Amino acid sequence: MNYVIIGLGTAGVYATRYISSIDRNADITIIEKNRYESYSPCGIPFIIEKGESLELLKHPFPRTKRINVLINHEVIEIDNKERKIIVKNLQNGEKLEIAYDKLLFSAGAEPLIPKIKNANEYLGNGVFVIKRLEDAENLIEYIREKSIKHVSVIGAGPIGLEMAYSMKSFGLNVSVFEMLPQVFPRSLDPDMASEVEKFLTGNGIKIYLSSPVEEIVVDGEKVVGIKSNNNFYSSEAVILSAGFRPNTELLKNMVDMERSFIIVDDHMRSSDPNIYAAGDNIIVKNMISGEKTVFQIATVAAKQGMVAGINMAGKEAIYTGTTLTFVSKIGSLEIASTGLTETEASKKYRVFSARARGLNRPKYTGGTEILLKLICDENGKILGAQGMGELSSQKINVISMAIRKNSTVMDILANEMGYCPEVSELYDITNMAADLLIKKLNISKYIF
Amino acid sequence: MNYVIIGLGTAGVYATRYISSIDRNADITIIEKNRYESYSPCGIPFIIEKGESLELLKHPFPRTKRINVLINHEVIEIDNKERKIIVKNLQNGEKLEIAYDKLLFSAGAEPLIPKIKNANEYLGNGVFVIKRLEDAENLIEYIREKSIKHVSVIGAGPIGLEMAYSMKSFGLNVSVFEMLPQVFPRSLDPDMASEVEKFLTGNGIKIYLSSPVEEIVVDGEKVVGIKSNNNFYSSEAVILSAGFRPNTELLKNMVDMERSFIIVDDHMRSSDPNIYAAGDNIIVKNMISGEKTVFQIATVAAKQGMVAGINMAGKEAIYTGTTLTFVSKIGSLEIASTGLTETEASKKYRVFSARARGLNRPKYTGGTEILLKLICDENGKILGAQGMGELSSQKINVISMAIRKNSTVMDILANEMGYCPEVSELYDITNMAADLLIKKLNISKYIF
Repeated sequence: MNYVIIGLGTAGVYATRYISSIDRNADITIIEKNRYESYSPCGIPFIIEKGESLELLKHPFPRTKRINVLINHEVIEIDNKERKIIVKNLQNGEKLEIAYDKLLFSAGAEPLIPKIKNANEYLGNGVFVIKRLEDAENLIEYIREKSIKHVSVIGAGPIGLEMAYSMKSFGLNVSVFEMLPQVFPRSLDPDMASEVEKFLTGNGIKIYLSSPVEEIVVDGEKVVGIKSNNNFYSSEAVILSAGFRPNTELLKNMVDMERSFIIVDDHMRSSDPNIYAAGDNIIVKNMISGEKTVFQIATVAAKQGMVAGINMAGKEAIYTGTTLTFVSKIGSLEIASTGLTETEASKKYRVFSARARGLNRPKYTGGTEILLKLICDENGKILGAQGMGELSSQKINVISMAIRKNSTVMDILANEMGYCPEVSELYDITNMAADLLIKKLNISKYIF
Repeated sequence: MNYVIIGLGTAGVYATRYISSIDRNADITIIEKNRYESYSPCGIPFIIEKGESLELLKHPFPRTKRINVLINHEVIEIDNKERKIIVKNLQNGEKLEIAYDKLLFSAGAEPLIPKIKNANEYLGNGVFVIKRLEDAENLIEYIREKSIKHVSVIGAGPIGLEMAYSMKSFGLNVSVFEMLPQVFPRSLDPDMASEVEKFLTGNGIKIYLSSPVEEIVVDGEKVVGIKSNNNFYSSEAVILSAGFRPNTELLKNMVDMERSFIIVDDHMRSSDPNIYAAGDNIIVKNMISGEKTVFQIATVAAKQGMVAGINMAGKEAIYTGTTLTFVSKIGSLEIASTGLTETEASKKYRVFSARARGLNRPKYTGGTEILLKLICDENGKILGAQGMGELSSQKINVISMAIRKNSTVMDILANEMGYCPEVSELYDITNMAADLLIKKLNISKYIF
């Protein structure tokens, strides 16, 4: 059986692993546009912050006799009638045709260039995106060569804020502009976001909320500032982190899409039965509400890649949706969430929430503050959680499992979280938040 | 309503919290034999290791008008017909009578003095147990005053091994004697225990397995060594960590017991309907096998205390059992487990297991090795897990939740563990272990 994988991102890597482990006769061809194989884009801000080599983010992909990886190749056409693709070698321009029985489209997404005056025009020349390793190289080179003093970040999501902190630790003046009235609008409620905003401000990063950017101001050849809410802010470099648009032009008019994202069934199959899709270019099911959503996160792409790979290789796998688990780290601040925010949940459910503030370990073993918000419906069913502080992402992992298993706040209260003073508190923050939350519900029977 | 709580350990503390929050008219009297209130016994080895003050382990108990705490008082009689107790003030010898409507017996357990020649005779004089703060003080004083060079630990459970490491970092020569052929016999399988043994040996601690101690050898007034397997080992001090016997003499012939542990129903009620029991002195249900077991762990006592408190105060709570979640930290080595060991599970189930070795974070953010063993039955139902390395206890918490919710290895593979290179790996060790384990099962359909 001939398998073709378009894009060697996380989804492509995990699909390939499963295909080759299930179908011992699989011939797999992977087409990757980059000049290098799989890499860790999420690591870029931290590598920059630490001044380490971006080379550390590359993962050479294990070749076998039956896995052919074509890097620096671009797919220019998919012929789904004849089941073949046409690929261009980006080094020498040569074209080749590759036949497939099953195709995985895991080409990911590209940074979205927002409709801001001069954003597109000055891309690479004072305006930067962060996705590929060369993006980071270009940004660092520009900052060094032009002796940049101010940098602005447009968009207060994880990449924007991680990059903002990274730039700050470079010694630059950093401003973040966010259209919405809070940071992390996707993953945090305003009460939790305000804690992050305080942390950023406390670290000397300027945050402008409810501040859409109208223009990147240029003076001749150079970027000199930002115009937002009709104010001018000096800035010689701008980082765009306004989201990602799916890389799906090749499948246009061939498979069903919604807002350019591929629609897949629970087998990760598109409307063409021989074309599967996984990763940042598909629309997925939110496990909690059952609604369709876009959630471009590597761990989710990994699971989808597995599901696609298993089905392509002839076994059966069902994808039941994402719990929307998310982690970011900005300087020393760990931030995590899973499930719906209270804001989002309130649109559909009668929502209760509680916030616990405690320690991740006792003070005498060096414990630090941890904050956990827990959200449930009137029956106590857990809808989401948000955490902040060291180990908060580990607590969120427990809630992610709880959500997957339709748990209630009672399960969170009852769950045994291991205790040893060197690593944890006797009364874990998850138990504590559940305790506070359960008191707001009308519980007739506690089941521990 | 008059509530009497015997013992201000973890179970007593949590019961009191719930009673007073549910029954606003509760009059609560707590009797505590110690000269201080609630404290953290689990912290003792770490406080000693760091040379910090044991005072840090004390938690003054919040008094209210309706909560009367009698420290330095001992219950000398329980009259369950008249529903009253007789209490002796240990300072002045005065006796008083206290009536109860509901009684919680949470007097905990006392260190077991094994039947070893001279163990009892030299207790406090070269032979030590570790339970109360004064036990630790006595040990430290003895080591300092007598300029002790060698110390032996009898029993390779958590307290024994944590104390062994703590004594080693004091600069002493330390030997550990364990009757069974492995360390942590309760919580780890031999393959995982051997990793701990390697770590201890690597840190200069001598471990003697399959080595019951026959005699503590004395020379006149002084302890001078240990006799085990007919060999003599020099040692001027001995720490006994051979387990704990329940403190239940007062209830003898009054309520049903098994091996001196109180038998309770799922409401934490003993065979006397007005006497509840919780904590280290009861026999509990193992949630996985449904069998009765003894599991003297603070987090478990906390849950049982809550269950008892809720029921005593007139609401209903059910205790469904313990997942046997356990954590220890020996020097830099974090060790955790939950559920059944493979050894234990094999007695009842057809068992499959897999062990994954990976990183807790990528190398470029300072990741270190983490090891996770996952155990399931032939249907993939998770029966237990064991972990080692930094963050392993956090991973075990996820598995504890999974066990509580009757999860399968598929749930562990599918669970979204948040990824951010600064705090975690893209392919979490739990997912990785599940991946290895699932390949050993005959799975017809993967449900992500």
